[in-house]
Amino acid sequence: MMDDTEKSRIWQKITEYAEASASELSELRRDFHRHPEPGWMEFRTSGRIADLLHLYGCDEVLTDQQVCKAEARMGVPEGGGMTGVIGMLHCGMGPTVALRFDIDALPVRECEELDHFPAQEGFRSEHAGYMHACGHDGHITVGLGTAKLLCQMREQLHGTIKFIFQPAEEGVRGARAIVENGHLEDVDFLLAAHMYGGSEQHPCGICITAGHGLATTKLDVDFHGKASHAAAAPEQGNNALLAAATAVLNLQAIPQHGKADTRINVGKLVAGSGRNIICDAAHMELEVRGKTSEANQYMQTYAERIVKCAAEMHGCTVETHLMGTALSSSNSSELNERLEQVCAEQLNIPVWRDPEAFSNVSEDFSCMSEAVRSHGGQACYFLNVSRCSAPLHNDRFDFQEKALMNGVKAFCGVTAELLKT
Amino acid sequence: MMDDTEKSRIWQKITEYAEASASELSELRRDFHRHPEPGWMEFRTSGRIADLLHLYGCDEVLTDQQVCKAEARMGVPEGGGMTGVIGMLHCGMGPTVALRFDIDALPVRECEELDHFPAQEGFRSEHAGYMHACGHDGHITVGLGTAKLLCQMREQLHGTIKFIFQPAEEGVRGARAIVENGHLEDVDFLLAAHMYGGSEQHPCGICITAGHGLATTKLDVDFHGKASHAAAAPEQGNNALLAAATAVLNLQAIPQHGKADTRINVGKLVAGSGRNIICDAAHMELEVRGKTSEANQYMQTYAERIVKCAAEMHGCTVETHLMGTALSSSNSSELNERLEQVCAEQLNIPVWRDPEAFSNVSEDFSCMSEAVRSHGGQACYFLNVSRCSAPLHNDRFDFQEKALMNGVKAFCGVTAELLKT
Amino acid sequence: MMDDTEKSRIWQKITEYAEASASELSELRRDFHRHPEPGWMEFRTSGRIADLLHLYGCDEVLTDQQVCKAEARMGVPEGGGMTGVIGMLHCGMGPTVALRFDIDALPVRECEELDHFPAQEGFRSEHAGYMHACGHDGHITVGLGTAKLLCQMREQLHGTIKFIFQPAEEGVRGARAIVENGHLEDVDFLLAAHMYGGSEQHPCGICITAGHGLATTKLDVDFHGKASHAAAAPEQGNNALLAAATAVLNLQAIPQHGKADTRINVGKLVAGSGRNIICDAAHMELEVRGKTSEANQYMQTYAERIVKCAAEMHGCTVETHLMGTALSSSNSSELNERLEQVCAEQLNIPVWRDPEAFSNVSEDFSCMSEAVRSHGGQACYFLNVSRCSAPLHNDRFDFQEKALMNGVKAFCGVTAELLKT
Amino acid sequence: MMDDTEKSRIWQKITEYAEASASELSELRRDFHRHPEPGWMEFRTSGRIADLLHLYGCDEVLTDQQVCKAEARMGVPEGGGMTGVIGMLHCGMGPTVALRFDIDALPVRECEELDHFPAQEGFRSEHAGYMHACGHDGHITVGLGTAKLLCQMREQLHGTIKFIFQPAEEGVRGARAIVENGHLEDVDFLLAAHMYGGSEQHPCGICITAGHGLATTKLDVDFHGKASHAAAAPEQGNNALLAAATAVLNLQAIPQHGKADTRINVGKLVAGSGRNIICDAAHMELEVRGKTSEANQYMQTYAERIVKCAAEMHGCTVETHLMGTALSSSNSSELNERLEQVCAEQLNIPVWRDPEAFSNVSEDFSCMSEAVRSHGGQACYFLNVSRCSAPLHNDRFDFQEKALMNGVKAFCGVTAELLKT
Repeated sequence: MMDDTEKSRIWQKITEYAEASASELSELRRDFHRHPEPGWMEFRTSGRIADLLHLYGCDEVLTDQQVCKAEARMGVPEGGGMTGVIGMLHCGMGPTVALRFDIDALPVRECEELDHFPAQEGFRSEHAGYMHACGHDGHITVGLGTAKLLCQMREQLHGTIKFIFQPAEEGVRGARAIVENGHLEDVDFLLAAHMYGGSEQHPCGICITAGHGLATTKLDVDFHGKASHAAAAPEQGNNALLAAATAVLNLQAIPQHGKADTRINVGKLVAGSGRNIICDAAHMELEVRGKTSEANQYMQTYAERIVKCAAEMHGCTVETHLMGTALSSSNSSELNERLEQVCAEQLNIPVWRDPEAFSNVSEDFSCMSEAVRSHGGQACYFLNVSRCSAPLHNDRFDFQEKALMNGVKAFCGVTAELLKT
Repeated sequence: MMDDTEKSRIWQKITEYAEASASELSELRRDFHRHPEPGWMEFRTSGRIADLLHLYGCDEVLTDQQVCKAEARMGVPEGGGMTGVIGMLHCGMGPTVALRFDIDALPVRECEELDHFPAQEGFRSEHAGYMHACGHDGHITVGLGTAKLLCQMREQLHGTIKFIFQPAEEGVRGARAIVENGHLEDVDFLLAAHMYGGSEQHPCGICITAGHGLATTKLDVDFHGKASHAAAAPEQGNNALLAAATAVLNLQAIPQHGKADTRINVGKLVAGSGRNIICDAAHMELEVRGKTSEANQYMQTYAERIVKCAAEMHGCTVETHLMGTALSSSNSSELNERLEQVCAEQLNIPVWRDPEAFSNVSEDFSCMSEAVRSHGGQACYFLNVSRCSAPLHNDRFDFQEKALMNGVKAFCGVTAELLKT
Repeated sequence: MMDDTEKSRIWQKITEYAEASASELSELRRDFHRHPEPGWMEFRTSGRIADLLHLYGCDEVLTDQQVCKAEARMGVPEGGGMTGVIGMLHCGMGPTVALRFDIDALPVRECEELDHFPAQEGFRSEHAGYMHACGHDGHITVGLGTAKLLCQMREQLHGTIKFIFQPAEEGVRGARAIVENGHLEDVDFLLAAHMYGGSEQHPCGICITAGHGLATTKLDVDFHGKASHAAAAPEQGNNALLAAATAVLNLQAIPQHGKADTRINVGKLVAGSGRNIICDAAHMELEVRGKTSEANQYMQTYAERIVKCAAEMHGCTVETHLMGTALSSSNSSELNERLEQVCAEQLNIPVWRDPEAFSNVSEDFSCMSEAVRSHGGQACYFLNVSRCSAPLHNDRFDFQEKALMNGVKAFCGVTAELLKT
Repeated sequence: MMDDTEKSRIWQKITEYAEASASELSELRRDFHRHPEPGWMEFRTSGRIADLLHLYGCDEVLTDQQVCKAEARMGVPEGGGMTGVIGMLHCGMGPTVALRFDIDALPVRECEELDHFPAQEGFRSEHAGYMHACGHDGHITVGLGTAKLLCQMREQLHGTIKFIFQPAEEGVRGARAIVENGHLEDVDFLLAAHMYGGSEQHPCGICITAGHGLATTKLDVDFHGKASHAAAAPEQGNNALLAAATAVLNLQAIPQHGKADTRINVGKLVAGSGRNIICDAAHMELEVRGKTSEANQYMQTYAERIVKCAAEMHGCTVETHLMGTALSSSNSSELNERLEQVCAEQLNIPVWRDPEAFSNVSEDFSCMSEAVRSHGGQACYFLNVSRCSAPLHNDRFDFQEKALMNGVKAFCGVTAELLKT
């Protein structure tokens, strides 16, 4: 047990350290921003993270097969591999806290105009066609800053800390592979945060939400038919485009779930080779979503039945590939409260509640969150708010770098709070 | 063997008799015209035919179960039964000739205007909503006249004659049930004719065709889903209307057969109960056709697969009922020639060829024709041409009664030709 | 102004009267239950209501054209007319209170089994195929009981009361016609209630809700095409079934509104005459709904565009008929509170809040409610809860008759509260 | 006028010359085979043809804008230009004969296996991904051989000869642009031929057909919608994929023409960018065909209406581009007979009739043929038959080079026959 003086020294240390690290954090973030890598291809990113975690003094640094279960990865592109890093810090007996930071970038071409801050300051993406347009460069940086400080504070802590640097969050493809390797099984407290744009009323600080989000499933569908001459022998073909068009209309026509809002979108269809040939192949990319995991499952099951029957209707076969999945979830209110209290009372960070903020999206943090909550652990997903220059995923997205410092404070603070005894 | 004098006496007898019967035939025809009955409900019609065949001296008169195989009947309406009559005339050793006459009427309300001959002459339909708009009243009459004369001529004939009065030709529903009772198995020569409108060039007489017609299959489809409240619990229903609408579009979109013209039509759809209830049932009536039986079969198989998959796609079940079927067929050229020769040389009836006349329709004579041809017999379907007042199936359809006489001459003549030795 | 003694006498009078009326209310309710009439055909019902309002002493009893604006009625069936009644009670200077009671029955065949209370007690529907399965027999009865008592109490009241007996609530067809006659323009307070099934926790009493409901629009759609022979001349037809099937799939596929839950259902489709005729006419019944009036309008506009284009696509024409409409709405929280207070403190009725109860349905009370709120008035829709034997619209639906008494107490109580000064 | 000796010298000269040219023709053909160029990109091909026509002694050699009307070209790819060549030979007063040879290749990768004759002999395509898989290398060679000989024979001829080397026949894109430049207006006789595979019975020679073919129209369709986030704001998008899928099903469902066989195929569809974005663009490639130009026009008009309405239904716009067109046509029987007679009687080439051979395809020769026939000229399309190693358009297609000689004989022979007086 710590006495009050000891405790107050902890909060002071966190505050001082974080503030002193401002330029180091900024430099780190700009390096990652210059080198964005898409999901399952975060090779340089993972290498840098692993090196730094070693340097900071983590007891173990897991990489490659140690992080993700290979066959549980979803939506791996050509050339994709075993990315992601987990740093372990063992501080004796006590609970296990996992902090999760996502590390992948988006296939967005970054804005070149000079009123875009990274362009102006010369740290624009050097990987043409890719950009950290979702703030994950900030997430990585906050994760590394947090790891560095907690390594320094290990004597004051009692328990275990896992710094999980997760690949392929975009498209909700990566969390499952980490969960299936068992990394969440012994976790008592799990936290993660997302950069988020502030308002007039709350320009900067930590926003506590209910942790809701849409459950979702991402599917790729491939119809295989048979080509034949469209004038001379149409009856000898199996028309994959008729199957696909029937699937599109029926997928979009799945009756709403009565209890929970649902969504479906077939966003892409590529079919056929030439106008005088019965189409022999069609590739379709779709997603379903639901306010509850149950409603999402209803949509997914219905969708899978539709594509199967649409194929069969025209003598085609069909393959369905799971490309990503997220559950609906909730924050643990107790952990929410401890985070709120630490921020407000110990760290002097502005903090407020907005239960439904960020609830209209899908996050594969939910896979980890449900894994932890299923064995009685607590989970919390919060928002790291600063003024942002554009919406998430926009080619002009940028956050304020002081958010990096707030992030480090909040993660270190809540971890210290959880492991201080 | 007959000598030439004997033969010429036969032709003379046929000619004289037929011409003397004009007013008797006309009277008979008008009686049937006044009492039209739809398919499988030709109760009065069958009764009258059976009575007359007895009277004329047929050796056997088959009715009820003797005519049609009950379970092979298609498209039997509520109240429908075992109609149809077969008269047998045994004239010793020799080939078997079957003459087929169809007896059902149509659900057409007959024109009341006085320039419509049956209205003017007072023999308009007395069965409101039904009409002999396809000339089957004429076919019955020709069949009875032919039977009467051939019974009188039995001493000059060698072989067996079957006068087949077939029910439910409309919708191609009846022939199969007669074939499946085995009545065509021993038939060497099969003939039938249809009333047909003449042209400037050929106003009246006998037209010899190739006997082609479209193969066709008539299907009723019933989708069974599950009702639920459309706002509160749409996900608990199984939407039979989504299944049916998907089926309609895909049925109509079946790719053409490359080798033979095909057709499909979903002509009727009745689905659902109210706007705020997920539709739980849909009833659909459709037909497919093909220039060849193979092309028709391609359409039927594809159609059955579509309705099955459309149902399954929305968690519904489906039943498909065969309501009628006809094959593609051809006349035997040898029998065509004998008919032509008899008409032209012995009976003095105008006769000409028009191979593709009447080929754009479907006739279930084709079922009998294929049965006879499959064991080496010969079949011939010809047209009994006179000036007609309107197209077939129109509420103003009427033929000239002199066609009755020509019909009797042609059927008696060709039968005498076939059985005279 | 009333002094406290006077006031407490009012509450006592209401309580005593209502309790003394139990058997009269029950008798009245059973009479209406025996004679259910569907929307716009409540001729006997309206006659009885008008007679009783006269008898009770209303100053004016409006009927026929005085109630509904003829051309603003929606979904009027063949034989439908000018039903509905409004009773006016003028009690001098003061605010205007409108109480709305809906009076139509449903096309449901009432259960005959003896464990169904109305069957057991001999007051089952005598109008075969119709039933008060939504409790409107209770609503009428509560309205009449309320009118009778308030007429007796007129000396204690200051203001005007309108007893609105609205026809054709089912299908949300009737309210607009009353609004468009101006009856809500001078109303300061508007109240209505619905019979509702209680739970273990709240078996009986008054439930205060937020008054939310789904905005909805009911449309009938008629496609007009052109018939032709399906084998001989399909190209000469205009296929109304292809238009309708295309409309069904596309209507159901309208992309969800992002901000508010939406629904659509095509519940009924009747198309075509026979399988060998290109379908020349299709009749479709559909509804759209939305959590907000704006989302509902988005659905309606999209739906109207779809049916128009689907028709045009196949050379057909289309007519769209508005058959009913309701808005999304909200209770006025101030009126909610006054009702709650009166029930709880003066009338000793169990009362509780459940904001989202009954929010998954559509009520055309919303038309009246929005009319009143648009000029600054207050509106409140509450639930009259008792144990119910089956869900609303079920052929076994029944409520407990003690709810009649609670209803009268609540309506009289809140009116007295509003007009007592 | 020529006397008989003179005439017989002509036939002899043609025969001798053609046979002596075998190796020259073979060499020429292999050169074109090595350098296949797709439609509107036959730059090297056109250059070589023009050079040789000059060399052979044509009076005029038209190229570039002189051949095709720029704006009447259809389906011009990026990089495409003004290809095609017309050689003119003026031989005094007399009729005008046009001989048409098509010159473009296909986007087919030629087989590399050594049992494929061009691979074995070392003249396989050197333009990777393109191949003369439709025998147009042979057509060009026959045209050049014919031009060379007829230039030599000019003293014996009376009239004008046009050697039309047409670009972009594949996809029926090129003929119209030549017709619209007026080159067919003064033509009395028009001939063309296609390489064709022989049978056991007719392995090699000239096959006279009825010149029938399917009328066809090739259309590209571009739907333009509006992207939006599929979960957060689907209602703000305009879903081009819903429009396209609706179009696919309805296009394929266009009711058959009753009088003439029709076909439709949507062979290609490319739509959308990602699964979580409402699809904003869809590109579709389709074709319609008909046994008659009228039936083809019915299909085209219906198809254009469908895509327009499908777009409008979902708030999208649509552009339709005409990419190719051919008419239905017929050979002039008189010209057929003269060709048959010359081949059989003067040139000793095996010749036979097969009216419906090659009738299940579309040829834009029909545009020229109809132009000539519309002002009273005669047209003939015949088949130059030899044993072929695979079907047309296959990567192993090859014809026998002796067909080159037969082609030259036939074209020279019939031209001499037409212009000999």
